[in-house]
Amino acid sequence: MSAYDELMAFQRDTEALSQVAGRLGWDQETMMPRGAAPQRGEEMAAMEGVLHARRTDPRMAEWLDRIDEAKLDEVGRANLRHIRRSFDRASKVPAALAARIARVTSEAQGTWAEARANDDFKAFVPTLTEVVALKREEGQALASGGNADVYDAMLADYEQGTTGAELEAMFGALRPELAALRGAVREAKAPPKLQGTFDESAQMKLTRQLARCFGYDMSHGRVDKAVHPFASGSGLDVRITTRTNDTDPFNCFYSTIHETGHGAYEQNINRDYLLTPLGGGVSMGVHESQSRIYENQLGRSRAFTGYLFGQMKDAFGDFGVADEDTFYRIVNRVSDGFIRTEADELQYNLHVLMRFDMERALVSHDLQVPDLEAAWNDRFEADFGFAVDKASNGVLQDVHWSVGLIGYFPTYSLGNVYAGCLNEAMRSAVPDLDDQLAKGDTTAATSWLRDNVQVHGGLYEPKEVITRACGKAPSEAPLVGYLKAKFSDLYGIS
Amino acid sequence: MSAYDELMAFQRDTEALSQVAGRLGWDQETMMPRGAAPQRGEEMAAMEGVLHARRTDPRMAEWLDRIDEAKLDEVGRANLRHIRRSFDRASKVPAALAARIARVTSEAQGTWAEARANDDFKAFVPTLTEVVALKREEGQALASGGNADVYDAMLADYEQGTTGAELEAMFGALRPELAALRGAVREAKAPPKLQGTFDESAQMKLTRQLARCFGYDMSHGRVDKAVHPFASGSGLDVRITTRTNDTDPFNCFYSTIHETGHGAYEQNINRDYLLTPLGGGVSMGVHESQSRIYENQLGRSRAFTGYLFGQMKDAFGDFGVADEDTFYRIVNRVSDGFIRTEADELQYNLHVLMRFDMERALVSHDLQVPDLEAAWNDRFEADFGFAVDKASNGVLQDVHWSVGLIGYFPTYSLGNVYAGCLNEAMRSAVPDLDDQLAKGDTTAATSWLRDNVQVHGGLYEPKEVITRACGKAPSEAPLVGYLKAKFSDLYGIS
Repeated sequence: MSAYDELMAFQRDTEALSQVAGRLGWDQETMMPRGAAPQRGEEMAAMEGVLHARRTDPRMAEWLDRIDEAKLDEVGRANLRHIRRSFDRASKVPAALAARIARVTSEAQGTWAEARANDDFKAFVPTLTEVVALKREEGQALASGGNADVYDAMLADYEQGTTGAELEAMFGALRPELAALRGAVREAKAPPKLQGTFDESAQMKLTRQLARCFGYDMSHGRVDKAVHPFASGSGLDVRITTRTNDTDPFNCFYSTIHETGHGAYEQNINRDYLLTPLGGGVSMGVHESQSRIYENQLGRSRAFTGYLFGQMKDAFGDFGVADEDTFYRIVNRVSDGFIRTEADELQYNLHVLMRFDMERALVSHDLQVPDLEAAWNDRFEADFGFAVDKASNGVLQDVHWSVGLIGYFPTYSLGNVYAGCLNEAMRSAVPDLDDQLAKGDTTAATSWLRDNVQVHGGLYEPKEVITRACGKAPSEAPLVGYLKAKFSDLYGIS
Repeated sequence: MSAYDELMAFQRDTEALSQVAGRLGWDQETMMPRGAAPQRGEEMAAMEGVLHARRTDPRMAEWLDRIDEAKLDEVGRANLRHIRRSFDRASKVPAALAARIARVTSEAQGTWAEARANDDFKAFVPTLTEVVALKREEGQALASGGNADVYDAMLADYEQGTTGAELEAMFGALRPELAALRGAVREAKAPPKLQGTFDESAQMKLTRQLARCFGYDMSHGRVDKAVHPFASGSGLDVRITTRTNDTDPFNCFYSTIHETGHGAYEQNINRDYLLTPLGGGVSMGVHESQSRIYENQLGRSRAFTGYLFGQMKDAFGDFGVADEDTFYRIVNRVSDGFIRTEADELQYNLHVLMRFDMERALVSHDLQVPDLEAAWNDRFEADFGFAVDKASNGVLQDVHWSVGLIGYFPTYSLGNVYAGCLNEAMRSAVPDLDDQLAKGDTTAATSWLRDNVQVHGGLYEPKEVITRACGKAPSEAPLVGYLKAKFSDLYGIS
């Protein structure tokens, strides 16, 4: 066996074990009896120990040294790129620091939850200060011998090949456009709200039908309920979750369509890449581009909501909405709100952009943790036009920073930017897309995304995937154009 | 850290990983999308690779050498006994042989399934010959330097401390008693059969109530459906499964009560033993004693069936059974049948005993695989009084031998023998047990079993657990006495 074959055989088991660990996470959120939590913690830690030992196994360095990259094909070189990056990362971070981060962030999650319950940011300051310091230290270790910028090194954990400066430029162009559009929408007359209650088992029935409608393959997946919807797994076993609320069926349906985007991406990757580094979605940003384009550009389009209106009437009878146009306006209603995860398509990125600016300032020491709440509240009022009323509606609303996810937030908006680019290219490639969506047929859309994005898995770097699919480098312009057109039409803005 | 502490810390992770592997098995039978099977095979193999490497880790030998056993307490010595046995076993079997057995038995399962579908034993002969030869070779390796008998060494994988000769004596005394009782019952008038259909979701609702009624803790477990019911997991996460059939609700209810016996055993083990070698049921025989005593001596008793009759009337309305006595006779109806897993309490052990005699003869070369079908059919007709009609109703009905489970069958009957012993002791300790069971209150019974058997986990050797609980060594006599009394009464045999 060549060194490459030996490396890939070893890696295959690592990938398989990583799928097992991921499925434990799925089980924890969907099936696990509540009293099992302490034992599950030990099981997860043992799996992490096994995976960490494999990722830093000294044989990895030997194989990587011995491989003659010139003899590899494109797939081989891509595999090597992923494995080398993962091995370098694991080798650069001292074991003691990694262990300390694991321990501190595990405890920080509890501290954050308590502080949020008490709306007491000050109680969270010492913990967050420690988390930021440790993650900065990790970032410095990762930035050594290559990447100069610490935040860029942190970002690379979620979105390789993108820099903070690039995102700053992109988001800097996006923000004023979103703020202006938001302001105009707030001046206009709001559409009605949905009224009444909707049987939850009928929601689950329709939600499974919607997942299938968007190409989700039930023979390699399943749909369950979870408190916070997510997608889990790669290859032949990709599971998604959703939630139900009897007064808000859109929460269920659009959570499902969003997670179907994530799930279909994983399901549609070239099967030759199964249990290899190419067998999963390439980055958080590209992943989010799929979930968002399924959810928004397709699922919340005038055409598809027309189909959904009919499906909902079949499932729930007359639910008090007169016609497709009204339904479309209700689905896309823009409302004031504090919470990112509940934000509509127009405002969502404003939430993310402020987090990006703040976490970057925290890492660079331009902002100190004790000043974070005030900075948050100032920025929120500037962008949204009203004041944060309490910390749980503000700086304490997201779990991310407490668990050490710094560099993760911007991938949400990057995903939306990518979705904007892909939507433009897809609509140009499939001119009659809306006619099909109006009939509930997503085949042309999801096939285009499958063939141009999803099938590649980790073969190309994230930005390259989008560039190849669109025929040009990504920018925020298509997203801005799409949102302006959509919401100007919806709200009668000239 | 002492060598013992180091060993136990290492072992704790191994136990945690073993729980993860077990839960993968649960998932496969309950939740896994059908298309995921090939990937799941790789995931399971990777987990097995990790577990095997840990079980044969050279550090294990060092720790075991360095530990001063005299300094350990009872728990420490028991832990060491289990770990040493497992390490010796793993060390004695050459890796190449273990790998060959894994591969051959994995393929043999498919060959067996096809042969069974075609009722063609001859097609299975070459495969089974190879499996028996390989397992015999493994048994010889295990028997080296200690146990002289190869079958005993194989048996020790499932029931340590018991020999084939002991079982032969016990089963030899049991068989004529069962055959005679069976003959008498066949002469007597049979009770009616259950008629009608029973809503499957109502079955599942009542079955969960029955699991709780027998002390199953839903905060550390759950009840799902599976094709072949089983229990899975130890400690804080112990899951059981059952099945439904709309014309046979007893299949559902007694599968559940049976698996509740397995599950409650695992749930009730001293929590101090969590994720240690003492934290699981001590042997297959003791495990089966719990499932069987829950199912039969408790669940199929006149007292408890009286309660169940009322529960079924509440769940299904009038289902055509006049009174408790008739219901009791229906539940315990003895019918002719070919299939072990469908056999009633009286005939079940006759099925097992013939398998024990045959697999022992195969291992000792007294019986050759090509002659197995004829031997099976002769023995069946001798014990049951009618001829096997086809191989799928005979020698090909069970998967066990194809997957290399030799030495496993007798633990079923040993469990029944143990259940007989425990029932005698329990009824003497709790004189008013039937009054409680008649009200659906199993507390006194399940508490007695918990305190006298289950709580100990792996602390004592299997036979010692039963001896301690009963105050005397186990024998088949209590089971014979119980069955004679029960079925003589049921069938009016004087």
